[in-house]
Amino acid sequence: MLGLMNASVFEMVAIWGVLLIAFMGLGYALFLRKQVLAHDKGTQGMQDVWNAIRTGADAYLSRQLKSILPLILVLTGVLFFSVYVIPPSDEALKRFSNLTPDLVRLIVGLGRAAAFVMGAFFSLTVGQFGMRMAVEGNVRVASASRRSFAEALKIAYRTGTITGMLTDGLGLLGGTLIFIIFGIASPDVLLGFGFGGTLLALFMRVGGGIYTKAADVGADLVGKVEKNIPEDDPRNAAVIADLVGDNVGDCAGMAADIFESYEVTIVSGLILGLALVSITGELKWIVFPLLVRGIGVLSSIIGTYLVKGSKKEDGKGQDAFKSINRGFYSSAAISIIAFLFLAHYYMHEWRAFFSVAMGIVLAIVIDEITKYFTHTHHAPVKEIAGSSRTGAATLILRGLSIGLESSAWQFIVIALTIMAAIVIYWGQPVVFILYGVAMTGIGMLTLTGNNVAMDSFGPIADNANGIGEMAHLEPKARQIMADLDAVGNTTKAITKGVAIGSAVIAAVSLFGAFLTDVTKVQAQMGIAESLRLLTTGIRVSEPIVFVGLLIGAAIPCLFSSLMINSVARAAALIVDEVRRQFHIPGLMEGKVKPDYKKAVDICTISAQKELVGLALIAVLSPLLIGMVLRVEALGGFLAGVIISGQLLAVFMATAGGAWDNAKKTIEDGLYGGKGSEAHKASVVGDTVGDPLKDTSGPALNPMIKVINMVSLLAAPIIIHYRITNAGVIISIALCVVVIFGAILYSKHGVLSFRKKSEVGF
Amino acid sequence: MLGLMNASVFEMVAIWGVLLIAFMGLGYALFLRKQVLAHDKGTQGMQDVWNAIRTGADAYLSRQLKSILPLILVLTGVLFFSVYVIPPSDEALKRFSNLTPDLVRLIVGLGRAAAFVMGAFFSLTVGQFGMRMAVEGNVRVASASRRSFAEALKIAYRTGTITGMLTDGLGLLGGTLIFIIFGIASPDVLLGFGFGGTLLALFMRVGGGIYTKAADVGADLVGKVEKNIPEDDPRNAAVIADLVGDNVGDCAGMAADIFESYEVTIVSGLILGLALVSITGELKWIVFPLLVRGIGVLSSIIGTYLVKGSKKEDGKGQDAFKSINRGFYSSAAISIIAFLFLAHYYMHEWRAFFSVAMGIVLAIVIDEITKYFTHTHHAPVKEIAGSSRTGAATLILRGLSIGLESSAWQFIVIALTIMAAIVIYWGQPVVFILYGVAMTGIGMLTLTGNNVAMDSFGPIADNANGIGEMAHLEPKARQIMADLDAVGNTTKAITKGVAIGSAVIAAVSLFGAFLTDVTKVQAQMGIAESLRLLTTGIRVSEPIVFVGLLIGAAIPCLFSSLMINSVARAAALIVDEVRRQFHIPGLMEGKVKPDYKKAVDICTISAQKELVGLALIAVLSPLLIGMVLRVEALGGFLAGVIISGQLLAVFMATAGGAWDNAKKTIEDGLYGGKGSEAHKASVVGDTVGDPLKDTSGPALNPMIKVINMVSLLAAPIIIHYRITNAGVIISIALCVVVIFGAILYSKHGVLSFRKKSEVGF
Repeated sequence: MLGLMNASVFEMVAIWGVLLIAFMGLGYALFLRKQVLAHDKGTQGMQDVWNAIRTGADAYLSRQLKSILPLILVLTGVLFFSVYVIPPSDEALKRFSNLTPDLVRLIVGLGRAAAFVMGAFFSLTVGQFGMRMAVEGNVRVASASRRSFAEALKIAYRTGTITGMLTDGLGLLGGTLIFIIFGIASPDVLLGFGFGGTLLALFMRVGGGIYTKAADVGADLVGKVEKNIPEDDPRNAAVIADLVGDNVGDCAGMAADIFESYEVTIVSGLILGLALVSITGELKWIVFPLLVRGIGVLSSIIGTYLVKGSKKEDGKGQDAFKSINRGFYSSAAISIIAFLFLAHYYMHEWRAFFSVAMGIVLAIVIDEITKYFTHTHHAPVKEIAGSSRTGAATLILRGLSIGLESSAWQFIVIALTIMAAIVIYWGQPVVFILYGVAMTGIGMLTLTGNNVAMDSFGPIADNANGIGEMAHLEPKARQIMADLDAVGNTTKAITKGVAIGSAVIAAVSLFGAFLTDVTKVQAQMGIAESLRLLTTGIRVSEPIVFVGLLIGAAIPCLFSSLMINSVARAAALIVDEVRRQFHIPGLMEGKVKPDYKKAVDICTISAQKELVGLALIAVLSPLLIGMVLRVEALGGFLAGVIISGQLLAVFMATAGGAWDNAKKTIEDGLYGGKGSEAHKASVVGDTVGDPLKDTSGPALNPMIKVINMVSLLAAPIIIHYRITNAGVIISIALCVVVIFGAILYSKHGVLSFRKKSEVGF
Repeated sequence: MLGLMNASVFEMVAIWGVLLIAFMGLGYALFLRKQVLAHDKGTQGMQDVWNAIRTGADAYLSRQLKSILPLILVLTGVLFFSVYVIPPSDEALKRFSNLTPDLVRLIVGLGRAAAFVMGAFFSLTVGQFGMRMAVEGNVRVASASRRSFAEALKIAYRTGTITGMLTDGLGLLGGTLIFIIFGIASPDVLLGFGFGGTLLALFMRVGGGIYTKAADVGADLVGKVEKNIPEDDPRNAAVIADLVGDNVGDCAGMAADIFESYEVTIVSGLILGLALVSITGELKWIVFPLLVRGIGVLSSIIGTYLVKGSKKEDGKGQDAFKSINRGFYSSAAISIIAFLFLAHYYMHEWRAFFSVAMGIVLAIVIDEITKYFTHTHHAPVKEIAGSSRTGAATLILRGLSIGLESSAWQFIVIALTIMAAIVIYWGQPVVFILYGVAMTGIGMLTLTGNNVAMDSFGPIADNANGIGEMAHLEPKARQIMADLDAVGNTTKAITKGVAIGSAVIAAVSLFGAFLTDVTKVQAQMGIAESLRLLTTGIRVSEPIVFVGLLIGAAIPCLFSSLMINSVARAAALIVDEVRRQFHIPGLMEGKVKPDYKKAVDICTISAQKELVGLALIAVLSPLLIGMVLRVEALGGFLAGVIISGQLLAVFMATAGGAWDNAKKTIEDGLYGGKGSEAHKASVVGDTVGDPLKDTSGPALNPMIKVINMVSLLAAPIIIHYRITNAGVIISIALCVVVIFGAILYSKHGVLSFRKKSEVGF
C-alpha cells in the first residue's frame, strides 16, 4: 500500500494522521466561520456599504476567473499530454508495477492534470473564500466595535484565522492526498499541484495588486490631494473600489501568495527527500516534511484560538498586539517541542531538526529586519521622516537608500541560511544541503496559519474602519476601529517580510529540485555521469550560462516596470472617472450618491487587461531559454531571476513600507503634523511607495516561483528536445520577439490610453 | 628581444609603432593645450570667478591625494611582497630565462609595484590634468562666446579633447610599455597597472560624485527652492562649490572612469590573448589588441581635429551637434577600415575583426538605448513629463519604471553581445569566447578620445555658462553659452551610457581573465584537471557558490545605499552653511560677498570622509569571500556583483537622466513651464535623480571593476591558502564584521551629524 514498500506501521499511521489533521484544520476554519457569522451586521447603513463591497469583490473574482479560465484549460491539456512527450519516472513505474506502462502513463497524466486543477482551485478557494469571509467579518467588526474593543478584536482576528487555516489545511490536504495515492511517484504529480497554485497566485497578486493600488492612488489623488476631502469620504466615487481593493489585494492576494509558498516548499521538499530516499534507502526523508506540516497545523489551531482581547479598556492597541503575539509564540513553542520529539524518536538524528528550526529562526530574523527598516520606532523611518523637512526629493532619496540597504541585508541573511544548511550537512553530498534548504523553507512556513491570520487581520480592520466612516458611526466606536486598524498595519507589514523571505527560500529549494530532477532525467536517458548537472553543475563560467544569468536578471526588472505602468494607467482612468463624477450637480453637497459601481468596473477591467501578458512572460521565458540555450543556461537563468527578483522585491517592499510609516509619524504630529510642508512631502513618498510595496514588489514573489516551477516541469522535455545549430539562431530571434512583444503591447496600451485620457500618467 | 621568441619583424615594428602612437596622442594633447591657452581669459570679473574655481578644484585634488596616499603606499608594498607569497608565473621565468629565479621574482615584484603606482598616477593625471585644463578652458570659452559661437565651440571641444587624448595616450603608453619590457610575462605586471587605475578611478568617482552632488543639491535646495533665486546666483555661498563640483565629478571622475575601463580591457585582453598564444602557438592574439588600440588613437586624433563650428549663425546647437558627430563618425570609419586591413593582412582571419566591430556596434546600440530612454524627443521622457501633471509622486513612479525597463534592455544587449562572441567562436574552447568578449570591450573603447572629449565638453560648457552668469556677461554671449550648455548636456548623457556599458563588458572580460588565470595557477600547482575551474566551472548549483552569488549581489546595494546617504549628509551640511551665510547682513542685497571658500571646504572634507570606507568594501570583500568560501565561491561572488551592479548602475543613470530631461522639457514651456505645479513636480524628480545619476550610479562602474581586479590579483594566493574547517566559522564571523562594519561607521556618522545639524536628512 501507498507504494511505500518499506513503510513502518508508525509511518502509515502518521501519514493518515496528517491527512486527518488537514481536515481538522479545515473543520476549524468552518467552525470559526460559524462563530463569526453568528455576530450581527449592524445598522442598515453599515449593511449597505458591506453589500457594495461584497458585490464589488465578487464581480472582480468572477471576472478574473473568466479571463484566466482559457489559459487554465489550455495548460491542463498541456500537462496531461506532457506525459506523452516524456514518459513517467521510474518511480511511477515502480509504484504501479502491477499495471502496464501505458496505463501508468495515463494515470500519471491524469494525476498531473488533476493536481494542476486542484492546485489552482485550492489557491482560488483560499483567496476567494478568505476574501468573502473578510468581507463578512468587516461589517461585524464594525458593529462589534460599538460595544467593545475585545469583541471587535476577536472577530477580526478569527475572521483572519479562517483564511489562515484554509491556507494551511488545503495546502496540507493536497500534498498529503497526492502522496497517499502516488507514494514514491508523487513528484510526477506534485509538480502539477505546485504549478496550479503558483500560477493562480501570480494572477491573484498581479490582478489584485493592480486593482487595489489603482483604486487607492486614484481615489487619493483626486479626493485627498485635489479636493482636500478625507480618505473614505462617501462622496468619492472610488471609495468602494478602494475598500474592495484592500480585500482583493491584501487579503486574497497575500493568502494565495503564502499558500503557494506553502505548496512549493512541500513539492521541492518531497522531490529532494525522494532523492535522499534513493541514496539512503530510508523512507523517513519524505515522511518528515509531511509530519512537520501536520504539527504546524495543529499548533496553529491551538495558538490562534488563544487570541482574544482583554477586558481592560486601557492600552488597547498594545494589548491586542500582545495577545496576537502570545498566540504566535504559543504555536511556535508547541511546534518546536513536537519537532524535538520527532527528531529523537522518529528521525533518530538531529540535522533535520536543525534545518526546520533554522526556518523558524529565519522567520524571526526577517521579521526583525523588516521591523527595523519599516517600523516607526527605529532609525530608518525616523531618518526618512526627518528628511521630509527638506522636501519630497530628499525624502524619496532616503527611502531609496534604505530600501537598497535592506536588500543587501536580506541577501546576507539568505546567504547565511544556505551556509547553515552547508554546515549542518557538512561532508554530505550536495543533495543533502539542498534538502536542508527545503526543510528550512518548510520550517519557515510552519506557522502559516498564524501568519495569514495576522495578515488578513490588517485589511479586515482597515475595511471595518472604512465602513465606520461611511456609515457615520459614533466617535467611541470609530476610535476603537482606528486602534484596530493601527494594529493591523503592523501585523500586515510583518507578514510581508515573511512572504518575501519564504518566496526566496522556496525559489532556492525549487532551484535545488530542478538540479536534482534534471540529473535524474539525464541518468534515465543514459547521459554520462560526467555530463549530468549535479556533477558538472550550472557553470556561470560557461558563456552561455552567463547569458542565461543576464537574461534572467532582466525579467524581474521588466516585470516590475510593466506592473508600475499598469497601476499608473489604471489609476489615471480612475482619476478621470472620479473627477467626472465630482462635476455631477449635488454630489459635492452629499445630495446625490456617486456611481461607485463605475469605478469598481474600471478597476476590475484594468486589472484583467495586463494579467495574461505578464503571466505569459513568466511561463514562456523559461521555456524559450531552455529550448534555445539548453538546460544549463536555464539554470543560469533561474539564478538570475532569483537574484534580481529578490533585490527588487525587498527593495520595493521596504522602501514602500518605510515611506508609509514615515508619513504616519508625521501625521501623529512630528514636524508640524497634518497639513504641514513636511506632511505633503511624506504624502509624495507614500504615494510612490504604494504601488511598489503592494503591487510590483509582491507580484515578484509568485513570478519567481512560477518561473522555477515551469522550469522544473519542462526540464525533462528540454533535455529530450535537441535543437539544430541553425535552429538556434531562429529561436533566438523568436525568443526576443515573444518575450518582449509584451513590451510593445504595453507601450501600445500607453499610447492608446494617452489619446483617451488627459491625466498624464 | 621582448621575450617574444617567435615575433615577426612586422610585429616588432608594429609594437614600437604603437608606443610611438601613444606618444603622438600625448603630443597632440599638449599641442591642443597650447592652442587653448593662447586664447584670452576675458575680463577681470571673469578671471576672479575662474580663479575661485581653480583654487577650489586644486584644493580638492590635493586634499584627496593626501587622504588616499597612505592606502596607496600600503598597497604598493602589498603588491611588491605578493610575489614572495606566490612565485611569478612560468612565463616570467621563461621571459627572463637568463636570470636566477630569485632575481626574476624581484623584477616581477618591482614591476608590479611600479605598474600599480604608474596606473594610479596615470589615472590621477588624466583626472587632474584634464580637470585643470577644463578650468582653463571654461573662462576662455566664456570669453570667446562674446565674439562667436564657432570659436566658443572649438575651444570647448578642444579642451575636452585634451582630456580625451590623455586618457587614450596614457592608457596605451602604460600597456605598451609593460608589454615591451615584460613580453609574455606582462600579465604578472599588468595586473598592478590595472589595479592602480581602477582604484584611483573609484576614489575619483566616489569623491567627485559626493562633492559635485552635495554642492549641487545643497545650493539648489536653499537657493532655488527656499529663496527662489536663480541657479549660479553669486549671492549663493555654494555657487563656486557647485562649479568646482562639475569639474571634479563630470570631468575628472568620468575621465578616470573611462581611463580605467580602457586599461582593464587591455589587461584582460592580454591575459586571455596569452592563453590563446599558449593554445595556438601564434603571437598575434596578444599583438592584435595593442594594434587595435593604436589605430583607435590615430583615428581619434584625426576625427577630433575635424570638429569646429560653422561660420553660419543659425541653428547653432544643431550645427554643433552635427560637427561633433561628424568627427565621431570620421574616426569610426577610419578605424573600421584599418581593422579590415589588420584582419586581412595580419590576422589572416576574420573572427577577431568581428569581435572588435561588435564592440563598435555595441557602443552605438547602447547610445541609442540611452538616447531612447533619456532624450526629450522620445516616449519615456515625454511620459515622465506628462505624469508631472498629477504631481511629484506619479512622476517619480514613472521614472522608476523607466529606469527598470532600461535595465532590462541593457541586460539583454549585454547578453546578446556575449551570444555574438559565442557564435563568432562557435566550436572553439571557452577561452576563445572570453577573448572575443574582451576584444568587444577593446572595440567599444576604440574611440575613447572622441568619447571623453564629448563628455568633458559638457562640464566645460556648463562652467562657462556659470562664469557668464556670475560675471554678468551681455545677453548675446549668454545665449551662445546657453546653447553650448544644451549641446553639452546631450553629449554628456551619451557618454554616460558608454561608460556603463564598457564597465560591464570590462568586468565580464575581467571575469573571463579570472577564470583563465585561476585555471592556469591550478595547473601550475598540479591540481588535477577535473578540479580546475575552466574544466569544472563556477557552479552556482554548488550551494557555497550560490552563497557567493547572493553576497556578491548584496555589495552593490550596500554601496549605492551608502553613497546616497553620503550625498545627503554632505548636502545637509551645505544647506546649513548657505542658510547661515544668507543671514549675513548685506549679503542678500549683493553688498557683501559670500564666503565661497567655506562651502568649498565643506564639500572637500565631506567627500574625503567616505572614501576609504567605501574603497575598503570593494578591496576587502572579494579577499574575505575568497579566503573563507574559497575560489569557486569567489567566482559566484563576482557574478553576483556584476549582475546587481549593472542592474543598479543602469537603473540609476537612466532614471536620473530621464527626470533631468523631463524637467527641461517642462522648463521649455510644456504643461505651464517654469513655476507651474508641473514644474515643481519635475524639480523633485530632478533632485532625486541627481545623486543617482551622478554619484551612486557612476561609482558602481569602478567598484565592479575594482572587485574583479582584486579577485584576479588575489586568486593565486587564495588557491594556495587553505583554511581549516574550524577556521571557516571564525572567518565567516570576521567577514561579516569587517564588511558591514562600514555600515555602523556610516550609521554613526548619521547619528553624530544629526546632533550637529538640524537639516533633517
